[in-house]
Parts: sequence; structure tokens; C-alpha cells
Amino acid sequence: MSANFAFEVFHCAGAARLGRLTTAHGAIDTPAFMPVGTAGTVKAMLPESVASTGAQIILGNTYHLMLRPGAERVAELGGLHRFMNWQAPILTDSGGYQVMSLAALREIDETGVAFRSHLDGSRHKLTPERSIEIQDLLDADVTMAFDECTSFPATVEQASQSMTLSMRWALRSRQAFRARPGYGIFGIVQGGVFAGLRQDSARALRDIGFDGYAVGGLAVGEGQETMFKVLDETVPALPADRPRYLMGVGKPADIIGAVARGIDMFDCVLPTRSGRTAQAFTRSGTLNLRNARHADDMSPLDAECACPACKDYSRAYLHHLCRCGEILASMLLTWHNLRYYGDLMRALRAAIASGTLADLVASFHDAQARGGAAA
Amino acid sequence: MSANFAFEVFHCAGAARLGRLTTAHGAIDTPAFMPVGTAGTVKAMLPESVASTGAQIILGNTYHLMLRPGAERVAELGGLHRFMNWQAPILTDSGGYQVMSLAALREIDETGVAFRSHLDGSRHKLTPERSIEIQDLLDADVTMAFDECTSFPATVEQASQSMTLSMRWALRSRQAFRARPGYGIFGIVQGGVFAGLRQDSARALRDIGFDGYAVGGLAVGEGQETMFKVLDETVPALPADRPRYLMGVGKPADIIGAVARGIDMFDCVLPTRSGRTAQAFTRSGTLNLRNARHADDMSPLDAECACPACKDYSRAYLHHLCRCGEILASMLLTWHNLRYYGDLMRALRAAIASGTLADLVASFHDAQARGGAAA
Repeated sequence: MSANFAFEVFHCAGAARLGRLTTAHGAIDTPAFMPVGTAGTVKAMLPESVASTGAQIILGNTYHLMLRPGAERVAELGGLHRFMNWQAPILTDSGGYQVMSLAALREIDETGVAFRSHLDGSRHKLTPERSIEIQDLLDADVTMAFDECTSFPATVEQASQSMTLSMRWALRSRQAFRARPGYGIFGIVQGGVFAGLRQDSARALRDIGFDGYAVGGLAVGEGQETMFKVLDETVPALPADRPRYLMGVGKPADIIGAVARGIDMFDCVLPTRSGRTAQAFTRSGTLNLRNARHADDMSPLDAECACPACKDYSRAYLHHLCRCGEILASMLLTWHNLRYYGDLMRALRAAIASGTLADLVASFHDAQARGGAAA
Repeated sequence: MSANFAFEVFHCAGAARLGRLTTAHGAIDTPAFMPVGTAGTVKAMLPESVASTGAQIILGNTYHLMLRPGAERVAELGGLHRFMNWQAPILTDSGGYQVMSLAALREIDETGVAFRSHLDGSRHKLTPERSIEIQDLLDADVTMAFDECTSFPATVEQASQSMTLSMRWALRSRQAFRARPGYGIFGIVQGGVFAGLRQDSARALRDIGFDGYAVGGLAVGEGQETMFKVLDETVPALPADRPRYLMGVGKPADIIGAVARGIDMFDCVLPTRSGRTAQAFTRSGTLNLRNARHADDMSPLDAECACPACKDYSRAYLHHLCRCGEILASMLLTWHNLRYYGDLMRALRAAIASGTLADLVASFHDAQARGGAAA
């Protein structure tokens, strides 16, 4: 528990980096994907199964956990790692995004956001100081600054006002953060799709000084091309010696493109949520297991995957479970999807190390195109 | 796959027996509890996790599997063991019970039962011959005769008519059964709560000759006292050298009482269904994990249990999962409940072997009474 919070870069391949982030609860090889454990559980998975997919860090949600079971309760029960039996690193978001997307009767002012719980209507307020305190109570290895996720689309004036508010909150977040060995806090770049605002935001965060830098406000409807353009304009403005985290991203192709642009960390509900709706990511594209064409298919979901869904079961069986709405369908497909993401990140790290990232990108798109044609 | 279907009794303690049933897919130590795997999955459990609870055999449902994915399809996919990745023995029910409880527009006559699927309204007919054929297609180690589960309450005339129909169907089931090494068929005693009918039924089945004998039509609302009375009147009429199976039973106290009366095999949805509704069986009684008194309780669900739910998590965490409706709640509580049942059967077998069954019964009821007072 005494490791310093540290980030090392071992290799670069163009903008892409192979690195390692060290925290109080262990190290994370980057580029890394963080499965989402919203309410203190990566849905439909035991923690040891999550780890078996290659995940070395998970994300917890401040908004959900503050409402249920409550941050002070988690602290009294020994912190989130102990509560949910996940002894590896945890990153928590700040609650800002969920407050705006889930809570009712939101009132935002300079101090923070007042809102009512989507669960029981109870009144709450999140400020930068309270968000940081909650993340401390949860014992997050990586704390995120409290920000406002700029809505999309937004005019340059709206994006500017939102970004500058987030930068004032970033300073308050940084000041509220309690320094402890092995724990760090990341700032979040905002600014919508506007290069100037993004660069202003990056500069403001660098001036404050954070242990890592996230790019927020993307994957909100702007499309992959625009997202990559914003990354091209933003990432060079971030410190080279700190981890870079692209929040809420994404599809495999999004991750591959963002790694090539210098992003080190990702989180997304896609592999877990898809696993609960019969969607599977495979090396030949995405499959809908509810589709009747799988009913008699004895082949595995993905012949190159070593997860239990692929080793022990046929597509026909997975189809049957999905049609019946069986919990085991969610369990097996979530496991598979997280393993797919884990394997993808492992392959990306190996490709950066061996200087073959361009080959990986080309063969990924070839295989997906062939699979799409076959499906 | 070449073992003969055989039953040995090693020890007796009063009416209770310690034995072993050998089948094509392995042996079952008796008294045994069979987790229910209705639609080709023990809900919320991986098969290897089911096995880890001590279960050596599971039950599959003819009615559900004939409708979805279809018996012929399961056969083409290599049988139910391969389809669901459960290589140990499987017993299938005959479909008679579910047709009467789930299907729509049932028409019963001497030939069998015509009905419409509760899933899509499609028309089907189950006869003794088709039920046995389906169980053959599923590759069940233990096939059950097709019967009519007599409704409760029933007059002696109703129970008699129903029982004699089931006995005619039992003969047709026996004749339709395809003999294979390691595979067996059980007859089912009916007769409601009427001792004379039960004994007539047992005699009729013995005259036909089965590999095992089930007691059906109990746990349908008659109460534990009546059920035990029927067992006292029925079990002595069954062959001593064949396994005895009490269908659809039951609570731990039901199982303990039935083992003491000479029953060797049980199945029930209680541990699995309870696991999906926040109910946990423990050595000090049954707990509802949704109850707010667990919210801050750092103690394990059952300190004497070695399952993951008890080893790795607090009651507070399980309470949180149940309140949030998380799939992991169903996964952990189902695992725990099956482990509780597995441990109970193991304790019953040890007590029969060591001649301490009366002590086990007394200490079980003491602990449950103390727990009930504490809860």
C-alpha cells in the first residue's frame, strides 16, 4: 500500500505509448481498458473472473455509490476494494456525468449541482469538494476531478462557458484532494469539438498540475471522425509523462484509433452492457446471439478466445440461453466481451512494443470487414 | 459410458440409507439433492460451480426443453450433457407436472395430454411414448415415467382415477424405454394422501419393474405432517434394493425428515429460486438479505460455509447487491444456497454412516430455533 503513484512510458510507436501506472493497489499496464463496476459490481461477473479477462483496474461510479449504499457506509465497511472484493486498483468518476444524465431536478451553479436521486427523489448536492471527499471515502486509487460534461451539440459560447466552469472546479478538486502515497487525481479536459477550447482547457489543467489527464465530453454523439480530430488537436497539449484517459470510450475501433493517437486508458459500459443484451464482440465482428441463424451452430463464439463461453459452449447453446432470458447468458457473454477487450489491449501493448501497431490496425479492419460480409 | 445402472446400499440407520447410484455419466452418493436445471442451465450458475457445491446430478425439464430448444435439436447437438457442459449424471422429469402447471388449453385423455405452449401458443402432445423418446433424445441418465400429478386436494375417487391412469402410463413408459447400459427409468407412485391408493400404486409399479421408484404428488399443499405420513405409509411398500426419489422436495427440514424415512434422492427449485429473491439458507435459519438490518453487517452470511458468498463478502455487501437488483446477488446467493444443500446432504450421509442421524436432526432443529429467535 506504500507504492508511489507513478507512470512510466517504456516504448512509443508514433503517438502510441506502452506504459505502466503504479498505484496503492497495484500496477496497470497501459494502454488499459477499465471495466465499469457502477454499483460496486461489474455486472454479472465475480471479481476474480473480471481479473481473469486481463483487467487490472475497474471503474466505480461516485453518483451511484453515494446514493446506495452511501460513501460513508462504504468507508465504515473498509472501503470499496474490500466491500466488493476487488483488491486491484479502482478509478472512480466524479459523479458529474451521471448527475446530468440520471438525476432529476438538477440545479447547477458556481458551487456545484443540487439534484434529486433517481432512486427515491431524495435531495443531494455534489460540489467539487464533496465529490473528492466521496472518492476518498470509497478509497479510489485514481480520483477524477469534478466537472461538467459539456452537452452535444453545443455552440462555442456554451462550450466555453461550460469548460471554464469545469476548470474552476478542477482547481477546487485539486485543492480538496488529500495527498496519500499511491493515490492520484486526474484532471479532465473539456471544450466540446473546438480545438482552441480544448487547448485552453489542457493548458489550464497543466497549470494546476494533475497526476493524469482525461479527455472528457467525447463519445456523446459527435461521431468517430470528429472524436479522432479532437484527440489529434488535444493530446499533443497534454504532458507526455502523465497517463491520458479517454472517458467513456468505446467500440474496439474507437480504442484502436485512440491508442494510435496517444491515449493510455479507457472505460466503457459497452462490453458489459452488450453482454446483457445478447451482443458479442468477436475477431470477425459483432454477433447478435438472439439471431435464429445460431440455433444449430455447434461452433464456438470465437475460436481464438480462451474464455469459458468460447471454450465450453456452442453458439447454439448461447443462442438458447439468450432466447430464454437466462442469467447465464449475461454471465457468459459479459465474460467473453471483457476477455475480448482484455485480449485487444494485450495485443495493442504487444504491437506497440514490437513496432507492429500499423499491422494490427490493418488486420483488425480486414477481419471485421470479412466478418461483416459473412454475417 | 459403459457402467451398468446400479444402486448399492452401504449402511442403514433406521429407515435411512447411505448408498450410491451408478449411471453412464458417473456415480451419485445418496441421499442426494439434485439442483434443478430447467432450461438447460441451473439458473445463475456455471456448471463447474454447481459441481463445487457437492451436487453430483442435476434435473432437467422435459416440458421446457421440448419447447425450447427442442429435443431433436439437443440430440443433434450431442445431447444435454454436452449442450450445457455438464458431464455428470442428469435426471429428466417426464413433462407431466409442467404440462399441468404451465401449459394452456390442456386436454387429457387415455393417450396422453394435448396442450399449447405457454411460450408461443404452438400445439403439442405428450404421451408416455413421446415423453420417453424426448428423455432419450436428451440423453438423460435417469428417465422418469410419464404420469399425471394428482391435484390437491382430491377426493379418493379422483385420486384413484388419476393414479390408475398413471399406472397404465407407467407400463407404457416402461415398454417405450430403450435399455442402454448405465441408463435407467424410474416409476412414480401416486395416490394422493390415501394410504391404500399409495400402496396399490407401489405394487403396480413393482409388478412392472423399474430401476428406481419416485414418490410424486407431494409438496403440493398438503403440509409437512401429511407428507411424512404418506411417506411412512408408502416407503415400506417400495423395493429395498432400488433408489427412492421424493419429487419436488423441499425445505431442509422436509429433506431431513424424508431421509429419516428412507428417501434417497430429492429435487427442488427452492435453493435456486430463493437465491434469486434474496433468500439465504443458513445454519441459523433463513435470512432475507433485503432486510435493512443487514446494511451495516460486516459478518459473513454463514460463518461455517465455504462458498464464495460467505468467504469473500459481507452481509452488508450482499444486502447492497439485493437492493440494487444486481445479477451478482442471484449468482452469489444461488451458489450459497446450493452449497448449503450440498453440505446438508453430506452431513446426512456422514450421520447415517456414523449412526448419529438422531443427533443431526436434534441439533438442526435447535440451531434453526435459536436463529429464528435471533432473527
